[in-house]
Order: sequence, then structure tokens, then C-alpha cells
Amino acid sequence: MRSITLFAVPGIGEITPGADLAAVILAAAGSAPETALRPGDILAVTSKIVSKAEGRQVAAEDREQAITDETVRVVASKVHPGGVTRIVENKLGIVSAAAGVDNSNTPAGTVLLLPVDPDASARALCAGLRRELGFDVGVLITDTLGRAWREGQTDAAIGAAGMDVMLDLRGTADAFGQEMKATMTAVADEIAAAADLVKGKTSQCPVAVLRGLPDLVHPEGFFSADRGARALVRPAARDMFRLGSAEAWREGYAAACHDAGLPLPGWFTAGANGTAPAADGQN
Amino acid sequence: MRSITLFAVPGIGEITPGADLAAVILAAAGSAPETALRPGDILAVTSKIVSKAEGRQVAAEDREQAITDETVRVVASKVHPGGVTRIVENKLGIVSAAAGVDNSNTPAGTVLLLPVDPDASARALCAGLRRELGFDVGVLITDTLGRAWREGQTDAAIGAAGMDVMLDLRGTADAFGQEMKATMTAVADEIAAAADLVKGKTSQCPVAVLRGLPDLVHPEGFFSADRGARALVRPAARDMFRLGSAEAWREGYAAACHDAGLPLPGWFTAGANGTAPAADGQN
Repeated sequence: MRSITLFAVPGIGEITPGADLAAVILAAAGSAPETALRPGDILAVTSKIVSKAEGRQVAAEDREQAITDETVRVVASKVHPGGVTRIVENKLGIVSAAAGVDNSNTPAGTVLLLPVDPDASARALCAGLRRELGFDVGVLITDTLGRAWREGQTDAAIGAAGMDVMLDLRGTADAFGQEMKATMTAVADEIAAAADLVKGKTSQCPVAVLRGLPDLVHPEGFFSADRGARALVRPAARDMFRLGSAEAWREGYAAACHDAGLPLPGWFTAGANGTAPAADGQN
Repeated sequence: MRSITLFAVPGIGEITPGADLAAVILAAAGSAPETALRPGDILAVTSKIVSKAEGRQVAAEDREQAITDETVRVVASKVHPGGVTRIVENKLGIVSAAAGVDNSNTPAGTVLLLPVDPDASARALCAGLRRELGFDVGVLITDTLGRAWREGQTDAAIGAAGMDVMLDLRGTADAFGQEMKATMTAVADEIAAAADLVKGKTSQCPVAVLRGLPDLVHPEGFFSADRGARALVRPAARDMFRLGSAEAWREGYAAACHDAGLPLPGWFTAGANGTAPAADGQN
């Protein structure tokens, strides 16, 4: 019987800038025999505590401005009664609703930015844990992301070290001997999602351990394990949803006007922020 | 310490049309004490075996035609050296790369369509299990979906019964007393993803059990539990990615030509299938 266990590491207190996360996690996990780390364990660490340890909490009266500062490219935006929803690409290439800017579980007047390089943060944490433990574990750094087409958010991996993030089953034969097509399982995202089930959002359990998938964990220098969670970010050339439907529609409309040597109509320039009329109900 | 366990139910053989899935699962799970179902367990059942039990295997020499038949709306398509990738909306409102048409693990010359109504399938299975067991369990029916902006696929819930599919944390206070914004956790998708970690794609373990989240499971008639996985499908009015960027760009271009009373240019009509020039690299 194949089985896995996930548990939240209890007793991780408030994390302050400069904290040694590996030491904090090892002390907390080591406080009880059943939570003590074992070879092949995978740790899913909420990016929030990595950011706090790295001093990424910054003063910001205005969360919206902080989001703008972290945004590389606006993918889509939509005005609604509660304000503006912006889907943006951040410096890591990750597309999300707030560029990773977080003001929950932070003091008033501050926001928390994502780690500068979550894969590097994961590598450092993984190396620190392995050094102390004397055996191999894997590390994921997780964040909460929305999805296109589906309601609600799930946790996903934005940093990884010491482990596979993707299982490439292309070319594998199924039970009928047929080749399986287009099957690349984003295991790191599946593990991040699973870990969220025990971490919870309000309970301040920022670290979960998955036990039971040791084959995903590799020694330092193993090629696949070195690619990090960046490998889960779809490159622009393969991205069919680079822009929201309304934004792309507007670009097409403007291109046609330009090609015809016509000025943009008044309603077009008035209707910024994705509020132009668009086909098929996307506004 | 909060913890969960997931295990694959061993010994579920090939499923044939008309099979009593509840009986098959109960027999397999009951064959060993540690896999016998307990109150509050959540079963994640791969849609493939539900489809097989419901006789959704159909003869189809041409998988592409079967996808077309299952498609309600083409969201995006892209021609590449290996063929055409189509992102489509199926009859359930689910956006995916192949409308749920599956020809892996099926005999040559056949494809497997999704259950007609996976929420109804989940309700029937859940009711059957509860009747035999005499206590409450939850049921998810899962499928493998790609994502916008991220590489690889993860499993998600396309049917649900007897349990919450979403945890609505909006309005909950965080540890600093601030209200948490926009936090709706798609727990059913997170559980489906977690279950995939023990089911695997090639090992024919189509049923996994999650043990440890009994609070998500509700008696029959509980409102939230009755909404099913359909609640995870974003309605059109809230969907900012109704069309691929190239498709929306083309619609905008065509609308401007129409408004100006101009014919579509030759390159436009030649470049169907999302191959028209488009801004920002989405082709």
C-alpha cells in the first residue's frame, strides 16, 4: 500500500529578520519523536516566514503601490465594486493577483514582499538542514495562487531545492502499452497543495512535512533537482494566456486602427483598465 | 500536531460498464484493517473508473474528432510542430486541453469521455458508500488538468459529494487581527492534488483515501456540501481569461475593421488557428 503522511511542525514562533530558519525548524521538529525529520522527508515552507527571515517586510501605507512596485507586467485588470483586481507578472515570472505582496499576518502599515530568489532561499535552507541532519531532505517554498478558470486559490511551489518538481511521464507506456501523452505532473505544486491542508491559513503553522515520497529527493548535484521551482513557470513562448481577454482584444482593436491609419475612437481611450467592450462576456 | 494520511486503495481491478463502484471500493478497502474506511475519510476517485463504470468508453478512431464533439467553446488553440494544442471548455464548464477525452489506459480504437455529471456520480457513490458503512465519508471525482502560466498538470476535483469543496476564509481575522482578504481555499482541488501523489499515473491505483480532515465531511443535506465541484468552476462573468490572448486579439482586430467598414486584411483570414501576429509573444 502506497501512503504518505503530512504533518504541520508545531511550535514555530514568530520569525524575525535574520532568523536561522534551518535551526528554528530543526528545533521545532525535533521536539517530539514523531515530528523529527527523517531521510527523504520533504518540507513545505510558507514563503511568508522565508520573507520575514530575509527582512522583506517593508513599510507601506499603500498595498496597491507596493503591488505596482513588484509588478513587471500587467496581465489583466478588472474594475469591480470592491476595487480593482489586477493579475500581474512579478519579477520571478509568477502570474498572480497581487505580485506576492502580502499584508495578512503582518503588522499594520507594513507589507511583506516575496523572497528575492525563492529557489536560492530553498537551496540555502535545504543545505543547512542537510548539514545538521546528515541525510537528504527536500525543500519547497510555497505561496497561495489563484487560477484561471477555477474559483478559489491553492498553494503552489515558488521555490524548491533537493528534489524533483516535475515528473515527466511522456513516453511512459500505460497499462495497455500505449504511450501516455502530455503528462508532466507538477509534483511540487501537488505537494504544496497537500501541505496547505495541514498548515491552514490562520493557524500560524508555516511548515509542513511530507513523509513517504523519498524517491523525489536527490543528493546535491542531481540535475533535475537543481532546476528549482522556476521550471514550473511557463515561458512566454509557450504561454497562450499572456494577456487577459479584454486586454488582448484592446490591443487587437488598436492595432487595426493603427494599420488603417484611423484614430482610436473616444470610447476606446475612455475605457482603460479592461473596461472596453469585448466579445464573449469577459467584462 | 495536525496531520493527514493519504493511501492508495490496493486491488481495484479493471472496471467494466455497469460495475458497482461502491461495492468494488468497499471490498478493496476492506481487505486490510489499515485501509478499511473510517468516519470522516475522503475518497478521491479518478474520473476514469467512474467513466468506465458508466459506460463512457466509446469507439473513436480519431481522438481529435472526439475532442471536438465534447467541446462547447474553443478558448485557445495553437499550431506547433507536434500538432494542434486546443484549450477548450467542455459541457461541464471545465477548461482543459482535451475536453476530458482520454485515450491512455484504454484499448486501442477507443476513448473515454468524462462522466456526464460528475457531481451526480459523486453523490451516487457517496450515498452508496454511506449506506453500506453506516457513517459519513466524502467523495471527490478527480481529473488531470493543465494550468495557465504554469508548466505541468495537477489533479483537480471535477465532482464532489458529502463535503466542502471550498473553505471561505474571507472575513476571518489573522493573527494580527487584520481581516484576511480574498482567501477562498479550493480544498477539494488541494485534496485531489494530494491524492495524485499516492495514486500515480501509470500504476492503476485509481482510488486514494485521505484521512484526517473529518471537519470537511458533512451529513446529507448540509448546504455547503451539496454544491458539488461545480462551485469550483469560475462563471463566465468572473473569468478574465475567456479567450486565449491571440484569439482575443483577433476578435479585437476584426471588431475594429468592422466598425471602420473595412474588409479584413488577407493575412488575417489566412492566419486562422491563433497564428495571426499578436503583441507580446503569445504566438
